[in-house]
Amino acid sequence: MILTGQLDSPFVRRVAIAMHHYGLLFEHHVISAYDDFGELLALNPLGRVPALQLEDGTVLTDSTLILDYLDRLAEPDKVLLPEVAAVRAHLLRHLGIALGLAEKAVEFRTETVRRAEEKIDAGRVARIRAQIAACLTWLEAHTPENGYLAGDRLTHGDIASAVAMTFILAKNPEHLEAGDGGAEKVYPNLMDHRRRCETFLAFRSAPFPDDA
Amino acid sequence: MILTGQLDSPFVRRVAIAMHHYGLLFEHHVISAYDDFGELLALNPLGRVPALQLEDGTVLTDSTLILDYLDRLAEPDKVLLPEVAAVRAHLLRHLGIALGLAEKAVEFRTETVRRAEEKIDAGRVARIRAQIAACLTWLEAHTPENGYLAGDRLTHGDIASAVAMTFILAKNPEHLEAGDGGAEKVYPNLMDHRRRCETFLAFRSAPFPDDA
Repeated sequence: MILTGQLDSPFVRRVAIAMHHYGLLFEHHVISAYDDFGELLALNPLGRVPALQLEDGTVLTDSTLILDYLDRLAEPDKVLLPEVAAVRAHLLRHLGIALGLAEKAVEFRTETVRRAEEKIDAGRVARIRAQIAACLTWLEAHTPENGYLAGDRLTHGDIASAVAMTFILAKNPEHLEAGDGGAEKVYPNLMDHRRRCETFLAFRSAPFPDDA
Repeated sequence: MILTGQLDSPFVRRVAIAMHHYGLLFEHHVISAYDDFGELLALNPLGRVPALQLEDGTVLTDSTLILDYLDRLAEPDKVLLPEVAAVRAHLLRHLGIALGLAEKAVEFRTETVRRAEEKIDAGRVARIRAQIAACLTWLEAHTPENGYLAGDRLTHGDIASAVAMTFILAKNPEHLEAGDGGAEKVYPNLMDHRRRCETFLAFRSAPFPDDA
């Protein structure tokens, strides 16, 4: 399989981390969604990363749909989204907010970095900031002081939360310092959860790029 | 269950159609993602629709994650995403492009309608237009002349494609008329597939609003 996209994208990174966790071998095709837009459009009409090319040539897009496919290849003891209905609903809830946080953090950069200063819409920036702050507050309140989001094992919810936090820390740490005392004081559980996740082998095998 | 969001959103609408198809009863809470932003943020920190409140109070967001939950409640003969690996991969591919088309169509309106004219970024508009055109071309080439996208039954791929097309026809039909002869000539399979889907009871039970 071939995974296309840079690891500074939280969506590419969560797929890469899941593949390492599952022990699935893949080739990593590193191209930029902006600088290599033409090549990306040819591979995938949506012109977006991640894209995963399967052995038979099928190209899947959208990290959640890609993981729907990959989850079915996982060994039972490695599954990242348990089938038990109540646990799954709890994790789907968490996953929706964590993925939304990642999306809004990327959207914030698209609005503030990818366009000329005079084209930036202050109302839009304020709306995205409010969404990011609300997601962070919710996630902090629903992240345990130690361990995983549900039970005693890693899930897609943990991965999505950790990669979103790492992205924000690297790109726009100002989102985390709205209160007093800095990120560690305002979001202690979230920051600690992220730090622990980043020590796992699957995370270290798909590191956030230093130069991103 | 309570589904929040207006049916002019392709993402709210695909959830509503699936629930009608499954025969799942729900209350429909119609609020605007823009005009009722405060109420939405309180319900769901992401401040986005759709949101689905389950019987136990859990609120799920993200149409694909909501459907992951609902698909597990479906009668076997109504399932909208078959388990057979090859069929599922084929449909996930199609679903990714159809959902991406819907997302880009919504993003196009956010860029061109939701901000002051002097804040519109021509480069961004051109990029979104290119993505919409490429998705339409791909979907047209992969939509059969008659029937469903895979086998002899409706799937999430069919629903996503049809709701995206209905949204574009209502809101920005200019995306469909880039060639000569109008939408029916340029995208005959897609237009015909959409028209047929919109005659189904599940679609008519969650109609695109006339005044949207």
